[in-house]
Amino acid sequence: MARRRIKRSAKSGLPPGTLVHIGERRAEESRITMLRYEGEHFEERIVPAHQVVRPPRDQGGVAWYHVAGLHDVAVLARLGEVFGLHPLILEDILNTEQRPKIDETEEYVFLVLKGFVSSEEPTGQLISEQISIVFGPNWVLSLQEREGNRFSTLRDRIASCQGRICSQGADYLAYALLDQLVDGYFTVLEQMRERIGEVEDAVLQRPVPATLHAIQQLKREGMFLRKSVWPLREVVSRLERLEEPLIRPATGIYLRDVYDHVIQVNDAIENDRDMLSAMLDIYLSSINNRMNEVMKVLTVIATIFMPMTFLAGVYGMNFKHFPEIEWVWGYPYLFWGLILVMGLSMFAYFKRRKWM
Amino acid sequence: MARRRIKRSAKSGLPPGTLVHIGERRAEESRITMLRYEGEHFEERIVPAHQVVRPPRDQGGVAWYHVAGLHDVAVLARLGEVFGLHPLILEDILNTEQRPKIDETEEYVFLVLKGFVSSEEPTGQLISEQISIVFGPNWVLSLQEREGNRFSTLRDRIASCQGRICSQGADYLAYALLDQLVDGYFTVLEQMRERIGEVEDAVLQRPVPATLHAIQQLKREGMFLRKSVWPLREVVSRLERLEEPLIRPATGIYLRDVYDHVIQVNDAIENDRDMLSAMLDIYLSSINNRMNEVMKVLTVIATIFMPMTFLAGVYGMNFKHFPEIEWVWGYPYLFWGLILVMGLSMFAYFKRRKWM
Amino acid sequence: MARRRIKRSAKSGLPPGTLVHIGERRAEESRITMLRYEGEHFEERIVPAHQVVRPPRDQGGVAWYHVAGLHDVAVLARLGEVFGLHPLILEDILNTEQRPKIDETEEYVFLVLKGFVSSEEPTGQLISEQISIVFGPNWVLSLQEREGNRFSTLRDRIASCQGRICSQGADYLAYALLDQLVDGYFTVLEQMRERIGEVEDAVLQRPVPATLHAIQQLKREGMFLRKSVWPLREVVSRLERLEEPLIRPATGIYLRDVYDHVIQVNDAIENDRDMLSAMLDIYLSSINNRMNEVMKVLTVIATIFMPMTFLAGVYGMNFKHFPEIEWVWGYPYLFWGLILVMGLSMFAYFKRRKWM
Amino acid sequence: MARRRIKRSAKSGLPPGTLVHIGERRAEESRITMLRYEGEHFEERIVPAHQVVRPPRDQGGVAWYHVAGLHDVAVLARLGEVFGLHPLILEDILNTEQRPKIDETEEYVFLVLKGFVSSEEPTGQLISEQISIVFGPNWVLSLQEREGNRFSTLRDRIASCQGRICSQGADYLAYALLDQLVDGYFTVLEQMRERIGEVEDAVLQRPVPATLHAIQQLKREGMFLRKSVWPLREVVSRLERLEEPLIRPATGIYLRDVYDHVIQVNDAIENDRDMLSAMLDIYLSSINNRMNEVMKVLTVIATIFMPMTFLAGVYGMNFKHFPEIEWVWGYPYLFWGLILVMGLSMFAYFKRRKWM
Amino acid sequence: MARRRIKRSAKSGLPPGTLVHIGERRAEESRITMLRYEGEHFEERIVPAHQVVRPPRDQGGVAWYHVAGLHDVAVLARLGEVFGLHPLILEDILNTEQRPKIDETEEYVFLVLKGFVSSEEPTGQLISEQISIVFGPNWVLSLQEREGNRFSTLRDRIASCQGRICSQGADYLAYALLDQLVDGYFTVLEQMRERIGEVEDAVLQRPVPATLHAIQQLKREGMFLRKSVWPLREVVSRLERLEEPLIRPATGIYLRDVYDHVIQVNDAIENDRDMLSAMLDIYLSSINNRMNEVMKVLTVIATIFMPMTFLAGVYGMNFKHFPEIEWVWGYPYLFWGLILVMGLSMFAYFKRRKWM
Repeated sequence: MARRRIKRSAKSGLPPGTLVHIGERRAEESRITMLRYEGEHFEERIVPAHQVVRPPRDQGGVAWYHVAGLHDVAVLARLGEVFGLHPLILEDILNTEQRPKIDETEEYVFLVLKGFVSSEEPTGQLISEQISIVFGPNWVLSLQEREGNRFSTLRDRIASCQGRICSQGADYLAYALLDQLVDGYFTVLEQMRERIGEVEDAVLQRPVPATLHAIQQLKREGMFLRKSVWPLREVVSRLERLEEPLIRPATGIYLRDVYDHVIQVNDAIENDRDMLSAMLDIYLSSINNRMNEVMKVLTVIATIFMPMTFLAGVYGMNFKHFPEIEWVWGYPYLFWGLILVMGLSMFAYFKRRKWM
Repeated sequence: MARRRIKRSAKSGLPPGTLVHIGERRAEESRITMLRYEGEHFEERIVPAHQVVRPPRDQGGVAWYHVAGLHDVAVLARLGEVFGLHPLILEDILNTEQRPKIDETEEYVFLVLKGFVSSEEPTGQLISEQISIVFGPNWVLSLQEREGNRFSTLRDRIASCQGRICSQGADYLAYALLDQLVDGYFTVLEQMRERIGEVEDAVLQRPVPATLHAIQQLKREGMFLRKSVWPLREVVSRLERLEEPLIRPATGIYLRDVYDHVIQVNDAIENDRDMLSAMLDIYLSSINNRMNEVMKVLTVIATIFMPMTFLAGVYGMNFKHFPEIEWVWGYPYLFWGLILVMGLSMFAYFKRRKWM
Repeated sequence: MARRRIKRSAKSGLPPGTLVHIGERRAEESRITMLRYEGEHFEERIVPAHQVVRPPRDQGGVAWYHVAGLHDVAVLARLGEVFGLHPLILEDILNTEQRPKIDETEEYVFLVLKGFVSSEEPTGQLISEQISIVFGPNWVLSLQEREGNRFSTLRDRIASCQGRICSQGADYLAYALLDQLVDGYFTVLEQMRERIGEVEDAVLQRPVPATLHAIQQLKREGMFLRKSVWPLREVVSRLERLEEPLIRPATGIYLRDVYDHVIQVNDAIENDRDMLSAMLDIYLSSINNRMNEVMKVLTVIATIFMPMTFLAGVYGMNFKHFPEIEWVWGYPYLFWGLILVMGLSMFAYFKRRKWM
Repeated sequence: MARRRIKRSAKSGLPPGTLVHIGERRAEESRITMLRYEGEHFEERIVPAHQVVRPPRDQGGVAWYHVAGLHDVAVLARLGEVFGLHPLILEDILNTEQRPKIDETEEYVFLVLKGFVSSEEPTGQLISEQISIVFGPNWVLSLQEREGNRFSTLRDRIASCQGRICSQGADYLAYALLDQLVDGYFTVLEQMRERIGEVEDAVLQRPVPATLHAIQQLKREGMFLRKSVWPLREVVSRLERLEEPLIRPATGIYLRDVYDHVIQVNDAIENDRDMLSAMLDIYLSSINNRMNEVMKVLTVIATIFMPMTFLAGVYGMNFKHFPEIEWVWGYPYLFWGLILVMGLSMFAYFKRRKWM
Repeated sequence: MARRRIKRSAKSGLPPGTLVHIGERRAEESRITMLRYEGEHFEERIVPAHQVVRPPRDQGGVAWYHVAGLHDVAVLARLGEVFGLHPLILEDILNTEQRPKIDETEEYVFLVLKGFVSSEEPTGQLISEQISIVFGPNWVLSLQEREGNRFSTLRDRIASCQGRICSQGADYLAYALLDQLVDGYFTVLEQMRERIGEVEDAVLQRPVPATLHAIQQLKREGMFLRKSVWPLREVVSRLERLEEPLIRPATGIYLRDVYDHVIQVNDAIENDRDMLSAMLDIYLSSINNRMNEVMKVLTVIATIFMPMTFLAGVYGMNFKHFPEIEWVWGYPYLFWGLILVMGLSMFAYFKRRKWM
């Protein structure tokens, strides 16, 4: 999974803070959407990088810049300049192999986490992208690796001033972004659980080697998911403990709610891992069971026919002095009688041993 | 288990605090039972949602509202309004995929946990429902997912003023609810242990693939039980550390008792898990053992009859110059003598190797 | 093990503090032995429950009441009254499914732990009983589930004023009781290790399915022992940190000694578990090994006799034009020569492959 | 791996602080490169040991001494004298079996860690060497086990005053050294992941015993890597918490960045371990699967031909009274008809069982 | 290992502090060597127990008493009296089943740990003995279970005033004793690693059941080693945190060095355990692999010869109307032609399946 992308070593030897985009390079331009709102007032525009400005400290409302696509290093450099971001933070945004983390300064909070994309195909493997969120007292900067806007429903909620979002500050918007990403984990988990359910049926009914590979694939995706979600506990809990002016007390309870969701996701992942392990056990023991079945058939056949073949061999011998051969009833009664006795006693033996 | 119910993703994209009932939708109405008591005084009524009132702060006694059935979102919204519950807490009550948790404000304490229902069938799989408890200084609100009243024995104890419950406050009632749920875990554990005992007998006597599935089913239920009980440690311990006016010091010792019970339940679950793992080991090795038995039978049969069949084949050859064939004693002494010698020596060999 | 006894659910729905004896009900009466000593002075009597009195606070010496048998709930209620024990503590004493724990109030310390009985039979399974110890400044109350007195050697040491016990207070007596129970664990561990040694010999020499069951039985007993000893660490360490007047500083060093012993017992149990796991590995691989042996025998036999039988079959064919049949040396040289060549080359092949 | 080098016991019995080089002894001389820089000023020289001097405390800029090769104990003794290093620290530098650690005094900070060398061969096993870094307020001493200079790119960055390094102090240089070593881990991990990818292909397509050995070899290297990286968390985190004058606040954020990288490396190693375990599972189950295939072929063949051979044997018997033998249609219809019926029914049976 | 020695239960029921030697009883006398040194001054004598005196508190230099052999309880009682040791400490010294521990009073520090003896035999199993060290401000008491003096090199270093030992106090001597014991662990580990290397070669080349036993034996020794070394971390770290007058600040850095070594030993043991587990995996899978080989040979033989034997049986039948029998070319062309075709197609089939 994503083996080609890991070229972290490309940065080896460069001075820290050098901006190099690590990850898949995509063709599209980076695209910046600006969104300003203050209560009922709402404004949305696509802006070029040089028009991005940091709102003055005493300006009300929230200015939200959403960047889709990370490959244009110049855009990022410009954003870093405008919002006063530390070079190492810009580096973290570009390096899409980050594990979820949080960094706070007096001016802003920086969050990195993973967003998952629901693939449309039924076998749907996990597609992830790195999402970075930076927010100050009255501005939010969100960056996503891929094109499009994964926060469009949120944009609609702000536009229609639905819920309480449009009357809240930048911290609440950051929370809303976080919440939506975590909600996305539940969707991914449900898709995964469906695939687990299919694999489970396969394991119980007719396990084939492909079933094993499916289990392993799911295990690996679970591992990746876990790697993306596990550190979030710490991230959200630290975010929750931040103080004004970055996080206002009223937002705290919402963050605790996200924290509970993160723990729930973690629990669900652990659960899936346990289920997959159990399936592996069933798979392996079912292979053994079938081997057992095969061996029993072989043994039953061999045990029945070997003595019979021996008997037929005996009466096929060419000894000159061979009294039974001469008997009139030798063939129909002696031979088939013996065969019948042997067959029945074998049958009884296997019946008793429950092999048949 | 309960795969169809998990539709957490239905909420994805909605603003936080939007009330959506996640879980099985049942047909019956939500039904609110009100119970007021103060010492000997006792009063019980079924009330419609709009008659629910929060008792004034200086009113003595305890007002207990018990809600059965969660699908009527309007009822819950009304309760939230009356008791001043935060929208996120209402959301938690409705989302029946919660893990046990506690949330406290200055006004009330909120608890979510799982209650188990003893199914009447002998194969009895685990049926669970989510129980929410909210309590303030002189009121308790309990909500159960299913219809009926799982706290009817408690109601009877209050009605007959048995034990000390009718002279205690809301915190003691909340404790009593908690205590009864935890007592229910012991019942579930006993049922489970009985099923484990049956599976154990099956494993030791005649393990079949169905035994493996039973083990896995029990393991999964144990996993689910564990998920429901493990976080309770933290919940009860945090409840115990709360202060007046929500928890009075005299109630502390009772909560510590519940805490001990929770730990006991956790220990028992761990124990069951270990027993199930051991059974899996026995199951797997007994499959191997039986394979061994099968192989031995096959080998014994093949080893005895192959040389004999060869011998019979030899004397069935049609060589013109074949002296033994002509001998008078060739068949009765030479052939059967050789067969006897071969048979006995094989028998001795297998006896020595303990294969027979 | 003890499956019939677990009827914890019998209490479900009763108010907390209701005294119900959980465990095996035995026929004998509860019997209270009183022992008073102060330096050289020593007095011992069997007393009925109504004569039990709590010594006045300023009375010197130690009053030790030992109760054997827990089924008489009235006796316990009386003791609770005399010594001012909380109903929940009386409940804990009667519920013999407790895990080791400690509870302290300002008046007394309450300890629950498990005592093991050395069974006389050689296959000796583990027999356990619950021991409760309550002690105040100048009194000790000890309760054991079974009849008899497991502390009779301690009684003798007090009577003969051996060691320092008769000049010490109630805390030292409580320590001595604890110490003797922990010493009992070493005896149990030694018996267990002897049985492990026997199983080990069986595994290395001639593993049979019964060996597997013996391993599993030992594992389960180890699990039970572990469950009984593991929480003792916490119990003893908390006891050690208690302060005057319940625990005097001079007793601290003795308690630390008990603590070291508890850790030693825990280590030994872990060790036994590891050894049993290793034995399971050996057992399983020895089954595989023997299967290998069986298969080799089968393969060797089949590989030698199948070609030979084929050859005999060839010369048993009835073709009219069959030149070899007519040859004078066909049977003795051609046939037996081919058989010899085949046999020897097979033998060489198996020798080279180390199968024979 | 490196089994010959571990001769730690050679030091047993010597007084502590005795300098003995533990590890592979190499022929080349220890070589000291001195590098002094202060802003634009840059000076580089190879110096003999007796010319090494510790810069005075108030001298600006940074003096960096890099030592390649550790076998010359006299050189190390001289360095210890100049920089006032404790004998135990000199011992740690020489003992190349150290685990990563940090030691700080008021004068200097001492770090030991492992550097990995990218081997050029494709099968490339892991080659490691011990790197020691000691730094004071205005000097850095770095020591590497092997010849050459693994920090030459860093030297170039200083020489060309690239990035911010040439305007920073000794702590930043120490950070840069650390950062480069940790960057090297990513390179090693990428090489390893490539080899894991190859092994994975082998496991899924055609697992042979060599695949198992490759898995085990990778596991062992992962273990070694883990041992080298795991303690670095603690080391870097302690370094980060150090105070002025050794670590200036501005360097803190860079150290936190290194800390994040270390955690990322640890995560990746854990990931690789999990993948290797999964491969082991697939490998083992594929062996079982193939055994299953083999057994099925055997059973199918035996089940088809044993009854047929018996039938042929029957009609090869020499009974005088054997009616079927005489029938004109006995051979073509009776015999081959029976054979056909047997063959087809067997075929149907195996088809139904999905063995063919 | 040492199963006969564990007779800890012999002490059960005795008052605490009763001196009973637990362990192998050896014939030789306990032998006390006294060593006094103060700078250049050095004095060594074998003293009887009654001449042992505790140096006055203000006396300079160090008095070191080394006791070899623990079975003479009277000697120990005398030492306890002279140095004012608590009876429980004397008990700990005699009970040679102790896990490493530390006990400190205001007067002295007491350490118990395990020393390993390098056995001379090549198969060299681990031989251990218990070493106790007690030290006060100007005296050290060391006790070893076996005869001889395992600290003779240390004695020589003191005699020749080599290193800094002769100018240091009792705490440094205690450190030196500890250091030498820990150095001994490295020797043991190296011997063990050599045996692991041999077992590894055996596993990769020709695994036999004896290999499994060797692996298990090494695992058990690793377990024992681990049990002896693991608690040392805590012991040394607590020793390091002790204060004057028992541990002087200058000794602290040396103790930290020992602490690092202990951690290194622990790491190495964990490493060995992992390697042994990997070997067990290889062993088990190689058994399966060989079974596979055996089964393939069997299947190939059976698949080739069963159809051929059937064909020979067919032409051995006695049907009167049997056209092929009469053909002139029946035997040489029809029969052998069919045999050849069958043989070649089987061969091609097995070649394609890579079974040959």
